[in-house]
Amino acid sequence: MLKFKYHQPGTAPATLVVPEGARSVTPVITLIEYDAETLTERKISGLEELTDCVQNQKVSWINVDGLGDLDLLKALGKKFGLHPLALEDVLNTGQRPKFEPYDNHFFIVAQMIYRDATGRLANEQVSIFLGKNFVISIQEEAEKDVFDPVRIRIRNGKGLIRTGKGDYLVYALLDAVIDHFYPVLEEIGEAIDQMESRIFENPTKTAFRDLHDYKRSLLQLRRMAWPEREVVNSLLHDENGMITKQTKVFLRDAYDHTVQIMDLIETYRDITSGLVEMYLSTVSMRTNEIMRVLTVISAIFIPLTFIAGVYGMNFHTEAGRWNMPELLHPYGYVICVGAMLLIAVGELIFFRRKGWI
Amino acid sequence: MLKFKYHQPGTAPATLVVPEGARSVTPVITLIEYDAETLTERKISGLEELTDCVQNQKVSWINVDGLGDLDLLKALGKKFGLHPLALEDVLNTGQRPKFEPYDNHFFIVAQMIYRDATGRLANEQVSIFLGKNFVISIQEEAEKDVFDPVRIRIRNGKGLIRTGKGDYLVYALLDAVIDHFYPVLEEIGEAIDQMESRIFENPTKTAFRDLHDYKRSLLQLRRMAWPEREVVNSLLHDENGMITKQTKVFLRDAYDHTVQIMDLIETYRDITSGLVEMYLSTVSMRTNEIMRVLTVISAIFIPLTFIAGVYGMNFHTEAGRWNMPELLHPYGYVICVGAMLLIAVGELIFFRRKGWI
Amino acid sequence: MLKFKYHQPGTAPATLVVPEGARSVTPVITLIEYDAETLTERKISGLEELTDCVQNQKVSWINVDGLGDLDLLKALGKKFGLHPLALEDVLNTGQRPKFEPYDNHFFIVAQMIYRDATGRLANEQVSIFLGKNFVISIQEEAEKDVFDPVRIRIRNGKGLIRTGKGDYLVYALLDAVIDHFYPVLEEIGEAIDQMESRIFENPTKTAFRDLHDYKRSLLQLRRMAWPEREVVNSLLHDENGMITKQTKVFLRDAYDHTVQIMDLIETYRDITSGLVEMYLSTVSMRTNEIMRVLTVISAIFIPLTFIAGVYGMNFHTEAGRWNMPELLHPYGYVICVGAMLLIAVGELIFFRRKGWI
Amino acid sequence: MLKFKYHQPGTAPATLVVPEGARSVTPVITLIEYDAETLTERKISGLEELTDCVQNQKVSWINVDGLGDLDLLKALGKKFGLHPLALEDVLNTGQRPKFEPYDNHFFIVAQMIYRDATGRLANEQVSIFLGKNFVISIQEEAEKDVFDPVRIRIRNGKGLIRTGKGDYLVYALLDAVIDHFYPVLEEIGEAIDQMESRIFENPTKTAFRDLHDYKRSLLQLRRMAWPEREVVNSLLHDENGMITKQTKVFLRDAYDHTVQIMDLIETYRDITSGLVEMYLSTVSMRTNEIMRVLTVISAIFIPLTFIAGVYGMNFHTEAGRWNMPELLHPYGYVICVGAMLLIAVGELIFFRRKGWI
Amino acid sequence: MLKFKYHQPGTAPATLVVPEGARSVTPVITLIEYDAETLTERKISGLEELTDCVQNQKVSWINVDGLGDLDLLKALGKKFGLHPLALEDVLNTGQRPKFEPYDNHFFIVAQMIYRDATGRLANEQVSIFLGKNFVISIQEEAEKDVFDPVRIRIRNGKGLIRTGKGDYLVYALLDAVIDHFYPVLEEIGEAIDQMESRIFENPTKTAFRDLHDYKRSLLQLRRMAWPEREVVNSLLHDENGMITKQTKVFLRDAYDHTVQIMDLIETYRDITSGLVEMYLSTVSMRTNEIMRVLTVISAIFIPLTFIAGVYGMNFHTEAGRWNMPELLHPYGYVICVGAMLLIAVGELIFFRRKGWI
Repeated sequence: MLKFKYHQPGTAPATLVVPEGARSVTPVITLIEYDAETLTERKISGLEELTDCVQNQKVSWINVDGLGDLDLLKALGKKFGLHPLALEDVLNTGQRPKFEPYDNHFFIVAQMIYRDATGRLANEQVSIFLGKNFVISIQEEAEKDVFDPVRIRIRNGKGLIRTGKGDYLVYALLDAVIDHFYPVLEEIGEAIDQMESRIFENPTKTAFRDLHDYKRSLLQLRRMAWPEREVVNSLLHDENGMITKQTKVFLRDAYDHTVQIMDLIETYRDITSGLVEMYLSTVSMRTNEIMRVLTVISAIFIPLTFIAGVYGMNFHTEAGRWNMPELLHPYGYVICVGAMLLIAVGELIFFRRKGWI
Repeated sequence: MLKFKYHQPGTAPATLVVPEGARSVTPVITLIEYDAETLTERKISGLEELTDCVQNQKVSWINVDGLGDLDLLKALGKKFGLHPLALEDVLNTGQRPKFEPYDNHFFIVAQMIYRDATGRLANEQVSIFLGKNFVISIQEEAEKDVFDPVRIRIRNGKGLIRTGKGDYLVYALLDAVIDHFYPVLEEIGEAIDQMESRIFENPTKTAFRDLHDYKRSLLQLRRMAWPEREVVNSLLHDENGMITKQTKVFLRDAYDHTVQIMDLIETYRDITSGLVEMYLSTVSMRTNEIMRVLTVISAIFIPLTFIAGVYGMNFHTEAGRWNMPELLHPYGYVICVGAMLLIAVGELIFFRRKGWI
Repeated sequence: MLKFKYHQPGTAPATLVVPEGARSVTPVITLIEYDAETLTERKISGLEELTDCVQNQKVSWINVDGLGDLDLLKALGKKFGLHPLALEDVLNTGQRPKFEPYDNHFFIVAQMIYRDATGRLANEQVSIFLGKNFVISIQEEAEKDVFDPVRIRIRNGKGLIRTGKGDYLVYALLDAVIDHFYPVLEEIGEAIDQMESRIFENPTKTAFRDLHDYKRSLLQLRRMAWPEREVVNSLLHDENGMITKQTKVFLRDAYDHTVQIMDLIETYRDITSGLVEMYLSTVSMRTNEIMRVLTVISAIFIPLTFIAGVYGMNFHTEAGRWNMPELLHPYGYVICVGAMLLIAVGELIFFRRKGWI
Repeated sequence: MLKFKYHQPGTAPATLVVPEGARSVTPVITLIEYDAETLTERKISGLEELTDCVQNQKVSWINVDGLGDLDLLKALGKKFGLHPLALEDVLNTGQRPKFEPYDNHFFIVAQMIYRDATGRLANEQVSIFLGKNFVISIQEEAEKDVFDPVRIRIRNGKGLIRTGKGDYLVYALLDAVIDHFYPVLEEIGEAIDQMESRIFENPTKTAFRDLHDYKRSLLQLRRMAWPEREVVNSLLHDENGMITKQTKVFLRDAYDHTVQIMDLIETYRDITSGLVEMYLSTVSMRTNEIMRVLTVISAIFIPLTFIAGVYGMNFHTEAGRWNMPELLHPYGYVICVGAMLLIAVGELIFFRRKGWI
Repeated sequence: MLKFKYHQPGTAPATLVVPEGARSVTPVITLIEYDAETLTERKISGLEELTDCVQNQKVSWINVDGLGDLDLLKALGKKFGLHPLALEDVLNTGQRPKFEPYDNHFFIVAQMIYRDATGRLANEQVSIFLGKNFVISIQEEAEKDVFDPVRIRIRNGKGLIRTGKGDYLVYALLDAVIDHFYPVLEEIGEAIDQMESRIFENPTKTAFRDLHDYKRSLLQLRRMAWPEREVVNSLLHDENGMITKQTKVFLRDAYDHTVQIMDLIETYRDITSGLVEMYLSTVSMRTNEIMRVLTVISAIFIPLTFIAGVYGMNFHTEAGRWNMPELLHPYGYVICVGAMLLIAVGELIFFRRKGWI
């Protein structure tokens, strides 16, 4: 379940290798340049097209979808002065979300949570570079783009996103990534709520396995949410001056979201633990109940069967007067059945008093 | 069980949307203006009526019951300079209690605990703004108003509430919210105390489910109480000068209440954990006891039934002298029954020695 | 079990109400005035008698037993300038132990642990005010006085207690309260030690309930001991100059006691957890053992009884040559019993190999 | 198991009482005076002999074995200016290891771990005073002396111990005490390693009790090791100048040892928890297995026995043509036995499919 | 499982003893001297050959494989001024990873994780000294050398390793050690993933033991990874100037790796705990299921067998008209079998309603 990429122990640091699954896909690069008044947006085919944006004073947002082109990444790194260790982390997907301040740019790794085609929880690495006048975002997978709503907000030109600088854009991107936790948590919350009565009514193996799956999902969410909170917190306490005071107010809001997400995750974990407890106790109770039925039936009929067995013995009554004289008694059978009834009723009273029936 | 509202990932921050359930209700606004000598109190129908209170030096307490009117909230925000992110949190109910200092006002979210109509634990969000000369409190639900006791204290004009400023009023409001934990905890405490002997005497599935419900309630209370403590603590350590030293003495008292509430919640949680343990061990013990009864009865009668079975076999005694000669013996039956008695008594002694009966 | 008093949510802070149980008892007030050379001790009937002690330079220790007289407390508060919030905490018994520095006095709440008449663990609130030249101690219950040993030490006039100031007296009072944990812990420790072999030999339901009671007692002790440690620690780090350096050496000793008490409590909690584990495993093992006996007896006799049953069938041998010809065989019975013996011995060997008998 | 001495609540602090068990033994006092060149070593019978060592500039190490002589301790305290509270802790054995800086000397309590005559884990309190030019060590028990290796190193005159001052001697003593944890931990480690296969193969009650004993031993070790680490740490961060920089390098080594000891203890605790889990699961599995055998045998033979029972009924065939005509059928018996075989085989296949046999 | 070496309590610190297993092996010493332009590499037979490297300004990396030669280590210590306590830790293998700054050199202990010949997890101690112009690495075992990839990178002369100083080399060595965690964790991760369905389908004792083994492996990994993280962190925050700012960027990367490793370990531990829970619940469920089968079969046939037993009794019908008149009734048998069928069907319906079949 846990994906993590690593190089052979001893490999030089900052060794760049395209992850296996990503090789066949050609990355798509888009450039959005904007300030409060102007906006240009286009697809980029070669890095030389980017020369312009390094120079002007607009915010240049370069988005790369897919990790398939090593040369492109190297060229990008050279052009914008990105640290090789940061580029290594872009390619070694499965990183923990983290924030790393380099001399001339910030580097942020975030993990976006989503349900994949088979309905399993998956995470996609989103790497973000924030430098002077530029923001570079690199997404692990090419086909899906989580930043569309942000793009639309830029195009619409309303709100702070156009008047803000690159730091506000980074906030907007992070916020989009963080808010993806909410629908997943809502879904899990609903499932867990249904789980409770399901387990109480009918604690099947399948129910337990589902519960176990939710626990693992929550574990996975926590692994992602916890360091993401740290990322936002680090940005919030940045003292390099990369993050403006105005943006920090918004980052505080994003931080609040991560705190709420962690709180929800922990609460759901506590609830699932309670459900595991309930499952075990219900199974235990059921075994108890089954045993009670078995015991009551056995305890009643086993002695009666023994009595019947005794009078089914074939000792010859004519061999002596002590040989089963009851068999010859005119009311032998009636007395015998009566005794059986008495025993049965006695036991029923006994078990009722014990509270077993 | 956990309510939390969120916008689609990627939505612009500070997007204001009235929560679905709240749309149909028109909010009720009341204004109380007071200082040590004077007091005016009235319902407000339009925000233009508030112009006055922005200017004078009295404490203006504007209370809004219900979130149904978006325009009103926007106008309120504009008039008093409330931050849009704070207004968003007012509308996205289900927030964790929190304290946020903005440039010209404080923003506080608290959650009030109460039992709803069906007896379930519920929480209502109370949002409070504290600015220079004004306090705005916004309650999630229109029909219930938890601030009546505070209003009466203001009207009575006794005590510090009239001589104090807005910060004292905020303390009084928070204190009223926090103290709602006590009756709920008292009730849970009593229920848990009864639970103990109930579980010890008769550990039914229903008892366990009740126990489970209390655990969940305590979880919910803790989720609310913990951050509420942080809110009070933040106010207590405010260094902006919004909170006077005199009010801080009272906030320390409120802080003590939150600490005591947390302590009670944690203690009840420990006790319920002990009860779960007791439930499981009692069920386990009962199963053991049931098994013991079954085993003793089976162990005694199964061998006896076998012996009876043997002498119920139909081997023809006349076919050979070794064919069940016992059947023909004059004391066969007596000896046989005697042997059975001996076995039974022997087993009873054995089980008594083992401590099983 | 947990006592806590609270006012209706919304009640004004510092509202003084005598707790219900305490109303009927008239408090007893005693005054001890002393310095290194002189000592006067007397009962006080009216507060006007205290005028003198406010003025002189001796240490005045006013002890109040019982909370029944609201006017008295209010007068006391006025005379010595005690904060109304502190007085509220004196009356709202069941407070967590706490230390609160007010402008002109310290306020300390401690909880004394003792066994009540029925042998249950109970706690009595002791409130202490330390001001310039005066110490006021207020005990929840009138009939019992835990400060007698301190009084005797003052009367004897030996040791530091007479040369020390009010801060040393407060230390002596706190130390007396704290040391009450020791006999209770010793008792619990001995009971737990006996518990171990009791549970190992014979894990009854009663044993478990006793264990559960000890766990709850330890929980209660921890609730009291933990904040009491904080109280001593706060005094130890006082920087207002109320506590002299000399007294701090002794407070450090008291602090050590609280640390040792916490350590003992935590260790006993760990041990009781181990005993719960042992109980569950022993019950589980016993169920296993019982099942083994049942299974061995059933497994041996059920097949034999079946064989006996077969030869008890009444197929008419004369109806055909294949109808139970064994019954007519001269050694049929012997062979049959022999086969039964073989099966029984075989099974015994099988179970012995499995280690079940 | 936990020894702790305490005075009656309310007793004056620094009350000195010889512990009961120690009264009969006369303490043995030895004095070693040394510097880099000279060394004298002798037994002391009266404290007046110590006058000399207070004055000269050598390191004077006074070792007291046994706590039996209260006057001696008081005299020692007076001569060297030892604080009465420290002397109280020397006598109230069972203290947590601790470090207390007094004005003119340091006071250290350490606990030495050893196996007593019956093989149980025991601890002996070692109290150490470090002053200017003197070190006083006081051991709880007279007959055993753990400082012999240190004495030999001093006599040999090699290494830093002779050139070092009192602080280095204190380090050497503490190091000797701390290193006593290692052989005990090694022993427990080996026992736990054997435990694993023992529990897996044959989870008996005795095995569980042994496991439980190891857990308690580890609990006891942790209680001692944790504060001992704090003691060394406090010495390491001493800023009074009592501890030289050179000695601190060695104390850091001792600190490392305590860290390693804590790490071993925690790891063993984790392992024993895993073994408890394994024990419970193995017992649970065994019960399951036993039940399976019982169920298979019962399920096969109970229906067969019923069939045999049916044809053992005595309905008179001559009373009507529907009265057990099977009994008269020439192949009745064969068909009946055949049907029984079919049922048995069918059930065997069913259980094999379920994986129960 | 846990290896730790210790001297007899009381032994002088810095006592050097070659560990038993290492005595027979002669250590192999290699020297690599390099700067950005030049590189020499050779095997060293005597320490006098090292004189040169102490003087020049190149980086001298001395690698020692094996601990067998005590004199060599002492000479090395003398030549490079290594602290005796550090040398003691080199020989007392089984140390926790640690960082110790001495006056003129840093000392680092790391533990390399690998699978030994039998497939068990093992760790080898790697001790590293970093001084001015020299790095000394000492490996516990002679035959295996984990630093080959680093050596190759130096020989290739590319990258920072040749332009960097000794601090970068230490980083490279540590990085190589740390990255050995990854393949081990990957392997465990895969095994645990398979475990899940294995436990769910067929919870055997072996499966549990495997699970238990993984838990112990993770415990061992955590013991090593946690302090290794601290080592890197200490280097990262070095303020002595031994570590250049450039190297710190790389150490931050190594630190990230340790954080990720800890995160993986903790996550796997959580998952294995969940699997233990699943194992126990599955076994519990299986016992329940087995009991259900037993109970249903017993409950159905035991009463029927009793009825058959009753009509197998031999009361003489001719002894009285109340003696088993049913036997003479022409439809007695049919009615009896019919009643049996009714009872069986009734019970089947009852159990189906209970959800047991």
